[in-house]
Amino acid sequence: MNAPLHPSAEFLRALHAIVGAEHVLVDPTDQAPYLIDWRGRYRGTACAVALPADTAEVAAVVKLCAERRIPIVPQGGNTGLVGGSVPDESGAALVLSLKRMHRVRALDLDNDTITVESGCLLASVQEAAREAQRLFPLSLAAEGSCTVGGNLSTNAGGTAVLRYGNMRELVLGLEVVLPDGRVWDGLRGLRKDNTGYDLKQLFIGAEGTLGVVTAAVLKLFPAPTASATAFAAVRDPDAAVALLRLMRARCAEHLTTFELLSQPALDLVVTHMAGSQVPLTQSYPWYVLVELTGPGVDEALQAELVETLEAAAEAGLVPDAALAESVAQRNALWALRENMSEAQRLEGAGIKHDISIPVSSIPRFLERAGAQLVEAFPQVRIVAFGHLGDGNLHYNLVQPRGRSKEAFLAEADRANLIVHDEVARLRGSISAEHGLGQLKRDEIVRYKSAVELELMRAVKRALDPAGLMNPGKVL
Amino acid sequence: MNAPLHPSAEFLRALHAIVGAEHVLVDPTDQAPYLIDWRGRYRGTACAVALPADTAEVAAVVKLCAERRIPIVPQGGNTGLVGGSVPDESGAALVLSLKRMHRVRALDLDNDTITVESGCLLASVQEAAREAQRLFPLSLAAEGSCTVGGNLSTNAGGTAVLRYGNMRELVLGLEVVLPDGRVWDGLRGLRKDNTGYDLKQLFIGAEGTLGVVTAAVLKLFPAPTASATAFAAVRDPDAAVALLRLMRARCAEHLTTFELLSQPALDLVVTHMAGSQVPLTQSYPWYVLVELTGPGVDEALQAELVETLEAAAEAGLVPDAALAESVAQRNALWALRENMSEAQRLEGAGIKHDISIPVSSIPRFLERAGAQLVEAFPQVRIVAFGHLGDGNLHYNLVQPRGRSKEAFLAEADRANLIVHDEVARLRGSISAEHGLGQLKRDEIVRYKSAVELELMRAVKRALDPAGLMNPGKVL
Repeated sequence: MNAPLHPSAEFLRALHAIVGAEHVLVDPTDQAPYLIDWRGRYRGTACAVALPADTAEVAAVVKLCAERRIPIVPQGGNTGLVGGSVPDESGAALVLSLKRMHRVRALDLDNDTITVESGCLLASVQEAAREAQRLFPLSLAAEGSCTVGGNLSTNAGGTAVLRYGNMRELVLGLEVVLPDGRVWDGLRGLRKDNTGYDLKQLFIGAEGTLGVVTAAVLKLFPAPTASATAFAAVRDPDAAVALLRLMRARCAEHLTTFELLSQPALDLVVTHMAGSQVPLTQSYPWYVLVELTGPGVDEALQAELVETLEAAAEAGLVPDAALAESVAQRNALWALRENMSEAQRLEGAGIKHDISIPVSSIPRFLERAGAQLVEAFPQVRIVAFGHLGDGNLHYNLVQPRGRSKEAFLAEADRANLIVHDEVARLRGSISAEHGLGQLKRDEIVRYKSAVELELMRAVKRALDPAGLMNPGKVL
Repeated sequence: MNAPLHPSAEFLRALHAIVGAEHVLVDPTDQAPYLIDWRGRYRGTACAVALPADTAEVAAVVKLCAERRIPIVPQGGNTGLVGGSVPDESGAALVLSLKRMHRVRALDLDNDTITVESGCLLASVQEAAREAQRLFPLSLAAEGSCTVGGNLSTNAGGTAVLRYGNMRELVLGLEVVLPDGRVWDGLRGLRKDNTGYDLKQLFIGAEGTLGVVTAAVLKLFPAPTASATAFAAVRDPDAAVALLRLMRARCAEHLTTFELLSQPALDLVVTHMAGSQVPLTQSYPWYVLVELTGPGVDEALQAELVETLEAAAEAGLVPDAALAESVAQRNALWALRENMSEAQRLEGAGIKHDISIPVSSIPRFLERAGAQLVEAFPQVRIVAFGHLGDGNLHYNLVQPRGRSKEAFLAEADRANLIVHDEVARLRGSISAEHGLGQLKRDEIVRYKSAVELELMRAVKRALDPAGLMNPGKVL
């Protein structure tokens, strides 16, 4: 790590004048949590960390930095997995934390919208919706510490995308501080607006490289009053895809969750997570966790789910299945899926892939990628699971028993190449929901066409000609 | 109308070499249908009309035009309402009709996607989905003659937006010929892909000003197996909004249609459209047409709808309502809504507004705009109806009895100003689903901030620096 650049006294005075001296961090101990990601994989340095209180302060800070050519790294909960919110090691950049901006600005129940500042925790938005008898459907592991701004900037996904879409689909309007410090007020709460280019789309998923999102109008949904959850064994991934098709045909929009788990993935959870209970008496190569939600009462959705699973059993797709009969049983089923990442961590080092592929090609991907990995690494342990319903797999390799962490991780580049090349052959994505950040910025060049990269660069140049917004990320 | 420019013989030879001489129209009679919109409001001239057969031909034509600085007007079904697909009167532009590109390139049932060329009729896509036991939900009056390319370029809306979203929400991938003739292949069928800027969003709703969309991957949905439809009277717009809220809470995603109709609007349909039947015995100031769709059987959804309307009646929101008991009755109810535009046309000239407002502000809008219009034009006849569920009203003024068409239409600018200023005060949109085209290109400058207009111009400059794509539209 390089020593940080000393910001000029004049720059610090100007920053103090905008946000107050107590909200400008220069002491290394104070700065520390802002300079490293939560997994400890990315570490950088900054000339200062500024914590503005409102949009006007953000705008003034950005303008100040633009005038002085100081790069800015916008930061939310700093829970990303690709190093997108951590500064580089030059010490040149200012970290701009949105943490203090966490107001709910408005709740409009007849319009089914909530307007929040980007420092709001995702869990706080979920809670505000719940209190209003509504649902804000975005749900992911980091929801207690990630922020709306981060969710927007990474177009976050999670477990409810099949039914409700990604963060992009949940946004109606944005307020953004542009790279020169001007404020774009696009905080509209409209479900139809065709008056020119839909500018908010530029900033969603841009990982802070085109501006600083300061607030958003988000869609709220009716809170489901009923749910039904089951855990089912399937013969193979083809059967899982056929079951998904059957469930979509019979349950339509009631189908909210369709998660795939391989036997090795489930084994790790049972091994490492005390109290894990698999509700089936026999073991099978693959499983799915499925959930219906909707209006009405649980009994109606449970009957719909049971009938569908019976039809699937008759069609030879599902050899065994268990329905959750209580909230406790539902939670126990979900724990099998939710403890997956932690169980892997306890088992050893991991080489992870966050990929998506057209659902129809997932069985072919698993077969081909698996065969190539076994050939390249005879000891390989593949742990595959994920959101089959939207074609998103977490396709991970776990440290083989008896092999050192270092020796295993040294193979990461080769393994990534095998996995991602196969993804590309099937017209998939090497980053389904985590973004590019620092982690995949160079790798993406292998998988995107020159035309697409040039279009991305043209957009970047148009909005941030000086290249000061989150440099070194995405592009 | 100016005389068209004579295209150079060399340019025509080059065009012939690309698309074949029979697909280059220069004769005025052959060109005529491409130079005027279907309502006859916009008329232009062109140096030629070219009808390429595939993406390679489109790319070659665009490249040829770029080299010769010839503007291009991309055209689909030419059914737009704002003059977006009609050339200007200079005769300089080439009209590029996508009409011959109407192949379904792929249908992937496990991925629930269909890949179509942009000249496909919307109705053909709906039909292809239906044959595959799927739903492509975009539905609008012009569906028999409008094309997917036009739907994409105008981000089309229609009657199912409440449940399924606009065209933007129905697209997973695009293939686009860029203004310099390069092809961007973004034809991905992925529901999650966070590898940089989501470029397809730039072209959706851009009205052909940033490139030529040649193909798209569209989402398919489970075909609903059940529906329930009702026509209900409501006291006033506040009651309609309260009913929407109640229905969202109780029927959640089953609610697919929530259309508002004023008494004067309904009267016009009954007067002009033979066989119109209003199923209520008494007349009321406002009505709603509501429909639930979903999996399962009609009876279940009908019971859900009846229970909800009973609850609404108990709450004093709905004085009377009628449920469709057969397909014929359902069609009769829908006809009341669908014949609205035609009935207005038969009544006389119209000054139309395609606006959206946060749903919660619609009653206030109707009250305020109505009061101002009555004050300005004592004889005014307001015909309001539309997609209340997504805040989109067609707020039209109909030629007063005993007043000439010319005298009435001479008041259009003053009336537009009253209506659109009120829309703007309530943070609404002056073009909810029709786009800007030529019609609202100048007017939008009054309602968008300088920052927003400058961002739009920056995007335009970045993608089409020579300004050759559909000049004079949007910006």
